[in-house]
Amino acid sequence: MGNSNGLRQLDVELPLMNYPIFIGSGLLSDENLLMRYIKGNQVFIITNEIIAPLYLKQVQHALLNYQVDTLILNDGEYYKSKTSLFQIYDALMNAKHHRDTTIIALGGGVIGDLAGFAAATYQRGVKYIQLPTTLLSQVDASIGGKTAINHPMGKNMIGAFYQPHAVLMDVNTLQTLPVREWKASFSEIIKYGLLVGGDFLVFLTKLLQTGIATNNSVDTQTVLMDLIMQCCRIKADFVEADQFETGRRVLLNLGHTVAHALETITHYQTWLHGEAVAIGLYCAALLSHQSGHLSEEELKQVDSLLVCAQLPRRIPHSINLLELMSIIMADKKIKNKQLRFVLMKSFGECYLDSQVTEEGLHQVLLRAVEGEFE
Amino acid sequence: MGNSNGLRQLDVELPLMNYPIFIGSGLLSDENLLMRYIKGNQVFIITNEIIAPLYLKQVQHALLNYQVDTLILNDGEYYKSKTSLFQIYDALMNAKHHRDTTIIALGGGVIGDLAGFAAATYQRGVKYIQLPTTLLSQVDASIGGKTAINHPMGKNMIGAFYQPHAVLMDVNTLQTLPVREWKASFSEIIKYGLLVGGDFLVFLTKLLQTGIATNNSVDTQTVLMDLIMQCCRIKADFVEADQFETGRRVLLNLGHTVAHALETITHYQTWLHGEAVAIGLYCAALLSHQSGHLSEEELKQVDSLLVCAQLPRRIPHSINLLELMSIIMADKKIKNKQLRFVLMKSFGECYLDSQVTEEGLHQVLLRAVEGEFE
Repeated sequence: MGNSNGLRQLDVELPLMNYPIFIGSGLLSDENLLMRYIKGNQVFIITNEIIAPLYLKQVQHALLNYQVDTLILNDGEYYKSKTSLFQIYDALMNAKHHRDTTIIALGGGVIGDLAGFAAATYQRGVKYIQLPTTLLSQVDASIGGKTAINHPMGKNMIGAFYQPHAVLMDVNTLQTLPVREWKASFSEIIKYGLLVGGDFLVFLTKLLQTGIATNNSVDTQTVLMDLIMQCCRIKADFVEADQFETGRRVLLNLGHTVAHALETITHYQTWLHGEAVAIGLYCAALLSHQSGHLSEEELKQVDSLLVCAQLPRRIPHSINLLELMSIIMADKKIKNKQLRFVLMKSFGECYLDSQVTEEGLHQVLLRAVEGEFE
Repeated sequence: MGNSNGLRQLDVELPLMNYPIFIGSGLLSDENLLMRYIKGNQVFIITNEIIAPLYLKQVQHALLNYQVDTLILNDGEYYKSKTSLFQIYDALMNAKHHRDTTIIALGGGVIGDLAGFAAATYQRGVKYIQLPTTLLSQVDASIGGKTAINHPMGKNMIGAFYQPHAVLMDVNTLQTLPVREWKASFSEIIKYGLLVGGDFLVFLTKLLQTGIATNNSVDTQTVLMDLIMQCCRIKADFVEADQFETGRRVLLNLGHTVAHALETITHYQTWLHGEAVAIGLYCAALLSHQSGHLSEEELKQVDSLLVCAQLPRRIPHSINLLELMSIIMADKKIKNKQLRFVLMKSFGECYLDSQVTEEGLHQVLLRAVEGEFE
């Protein structure tokens, strides 16, 4: 740890701003790198009860020259809420943070989304830096500027597009990631594979067959940095082409319509986000098959990628499908009351479909409950 | 009413978007103009208990072809709060409004700020149209994309820069404006006069001497539309030059640092925003005088402009000045803990000052309590 080895950099280039993503080992304690992206003399670190004992001191130690205030939130998607958001505002106000403060998000996707939304809206916007500590947030949540909190009736319903000033990904943090979270991260990585197909899907399929999704050893750090770099590049391409999701970026929602509904119906208590996305990807594959695109063979391929990462693919019998459907009907992608899903014509060729009927959706959900290929 | 007479248009041109401001008579029921700026089939009108009985039916009638839902909030700055904001989100979710909905703000600055912030953040941003019904919101709040709610510890502390899709100003609505609100609007207009000086300040000084600030008769409608148009042009120039207030736009805060603190300390119960700004402008003039810029003569001129509009200029004895100062120290314009005020070198030449000391501020506040020129 300590020094940054094998540092990789990727720039996200947007119309009104650019920002760098750094991937390396030991970045959390790299004070020179951190300080480069802090302009004022105030820093506000937002983290959670799991991450704080592991990494907070490192970051605080790298910021000795600043007024550093810290807020430690409860862990979990359940806390991506109005209550946590206003805890952040209150703490910022109490510690008299001004418009030139810098918010640092130290944690996974929940912390990043919350801290990012607080940064987007505190005093109409202050700088923020992402220090994603989970694989899922490194390959997905910390890139692209989507910030949000959940509404009791729907995930990410309140939020903003707001870009970080810099993203520092320290792969050392992945060594303390619980295995369940590690595995769950691979659903977004598999999503990228389905989105772009080609060489990346071949590379990923082989990598999954080595068992990487179930075992994070230090030996794999170089491979891992490559994988993260490739995922960031894929996501950044979508974001650069369409920052505000008025077009192509919507394809990144592959699998997410059903996933969000599953998370909402279970109040974020049953699955990790990545696990819900795994079921969502399986449903998207089923819908793509039903729509006459994916073959039975390709459907099996999707299934086996998810199996390789030991991810769930089935909707449990305990879920009320009619209630699930009514939540899906309130999804953000709905336009003029028409159901819209990201579907696959083939691997590497996704599109936004408006042809799925309520009846068709119901059939697919039933099929996802029953399961096949077991 | 009914048809739009003497319609004036002004375009606000920003890097990533343009939008039009229309000024005219009868615009609220001009369905063709409204429909031009609505893309989906859902509309959500946010208004308050005072405006709803006067103008809501007109607007609803102009939107017969849409799914129209309405939320009527309580009136007053006190309700520019977290509670009202989440009432809006809840109502949008309950009525299943999608990302292609259009939010319409029908009311004054409070409704515009609240509805604008809800539009900026519901599903990460939906379209919105401003229908400002007060003189203050027509000359100020509805232009420039500043949206916000108040935090118990400070005004506008939570918000976003988010531009409307169109602004329709119907001067007919001004005929029902209570005289206290009418008068209070002139503090922002006087602020523009001090900011740009020159011909506009001469024009405004004469207009105030005719007593326009205390009497809104239909005869004045043409003069009024001219005045509104000129104010919108002045504000739009500042906004176009600096959308996110990183430079010149900050000058629009002339008088607002003290005004916001006065509103906060009295929990928005004592003054209308414009009245607080009047006192704030007087304090800014005193600070400018103390800093060696404005002459005693110019100070009197500021005072008499405010007198012409029958606006308050003094801080009441009941205000605790030390508490007021501690609120001022938490202002958004503070940078690296240095007090910053917009001051006048002369009329038409304002600048952001960082030289005012706590002691200097205290003296000026004391002088503003005592009052002079009575």
